Amino acid sequence: MSSVDEEDIHVPKDHPRAESIRIRERLIEGFKEGFVVVAGLIAHGRGEAFDYILGEKTHKFAKIAEEAAVAALLLAINPVISVNGNTAALVPHEIVQLSKLLNAKLEINLFYRTKEREEAIKKVLEKAGAEKVLGVGDSASATIPELSHSRRKVDPEGVFIADCVMVPLEDGDRTIALRKLGKQVIAIDLNPLSRTAQEASITIVNNITRAIPEMIQITQNIIKLSANAG
Amino acid sequence: MSSVDEEDIHVPKDHPRAESIRIRERLIEGFKEGFVVVAGLIAHGRGEAFDYILGEKTHKFAKIAEEAAVAALLLAINPVISVNGNTAALVPHEIVQLSKLLNAKLEINLFYRTKEREEAIKKVLEKAGAEKVLGVGDSASATIPELSHSRRKVDPEGVFIADCVMVPLEDGDRTIALRKLGKQVIAIDLNPLSRTAQEASITIVNNITRAIPEMIQITQNIIKLSANAG
Repeated sequence: MSSVDEEDIHVPKDHPRAESIRIRERLIEGFKEGFVVVAGLIAHGRGEAFDYILGEKTHKFAKIAEEAAVAALLLAINPVISVNGNTAALVPHEIVQLSKLLNAKLEINLFYRTKEREEAIKKVLEKAGAEKVLGVGDSASATIPELSHSRRKVDPEGVFIADCVMVPLEDGDRTIALRKLGKQVIAIDLNPLSRTAQEASITIVNNITRAIPEMIQITQNIIKLSANAG
Repeated sequence: MSSVDEEDIHVPKDHPRAESIRIRERLIEGFKEGFVVVAGLIAHGRGEAFDYILGEKTHKFAKIAEEAAVAALLLAINPVISVNGNTAALVPHEIVQLSKLLNAKLEINLFYRTKEREEAIKKVLEKAGAEKVLGVGDSASATIPELSHSRRKVDPEGVFIADCVMVPLEDGDRTIALRKLGKQVIAIDLNPLSRTAQEASITIVNNITRAIPEMIQITQNIIKLSANAG
């Protein structure tokens, strides 16, 4: 492990990449706290590059996908939002708020699953206001076929019985496995060519740090319209 | 720091991203050995994305830039190849071989400079056959203007007096500072829009794992032609 304290190097506010670096810092913080993995850091770098190419803004196609995703989650009987290390590091408060607005369960779902990481992410989500977090420890006791090792573990109360699963920053294999089980899968992925993006039912090609706040806004608007209509 | 051993998860040989993952493993190894930093992992992810978009192959424009770079380094009086953590992790043998063919000095040049990282990279390069490695400890005693902190440190025998410097995977500030000193700067950068790529004298938009072996081949061909001509 690196012994360098990279924070010793000050990034000036007028640095042309300041906002991107600020987001990156949250991820590095999660890495230091032990719930973001090395592969997650590299994956974040890939996301940075795609976001850079896309102009670091929400495109019309992303907004439409976010609206479709909110509608699908609101219409689902058992909606679940899957949370991994990067999601917990980047948008902890936002993902908890969205899950409450949508009445969607939160389930921890890790490519590199260990008890310690599960517990660390659970703590982050609880600190952000989550009341119940699925997929931790023995509660991730059900399995989904066609996936190896710990990646097949899901919660019998969560993804296992879900009809609609949102998987921000998911890998291709798992997305495909969930689709084969007949579940509606909503992906958030900045690479429109990835297997995840290609295989999901609804793909939001956007930075998760913009997508989740926007989905909160969309959900609040729909709830307000429904209240007025009622 | 993460306590997860990610290598426990086996990546099958037929995985659609196997080659990319194999390259990534070298970097993670360097990270575990303490000379690749967190920012280097994220930067590698950005490179992966740009390479992916470019089709993970050497384009004609890259080949032309590699030929120009080899010519510039052969014609220089004091050519220097700058080496950072990612370069040492990804192409240690190749960078040493190229420096020998070109009679170019190797100088360690770190954004996050510590004695430990310098020593670790020096060891990697020596193990790969390097006879002399500049920019380590007190030998990085000269400074270049307009850069803050440890990033301004250069070796008086190396970059300080160089007329041509190859900076694979360099940051924009340093590239600009070297250019302002009147040096010819050769960059290897997969992001053609980066400040480094825009500001360098010659920019090779290619994966370093392809670019350096190709530059070795180009140099050998030129040397062979010169010998025949002589």
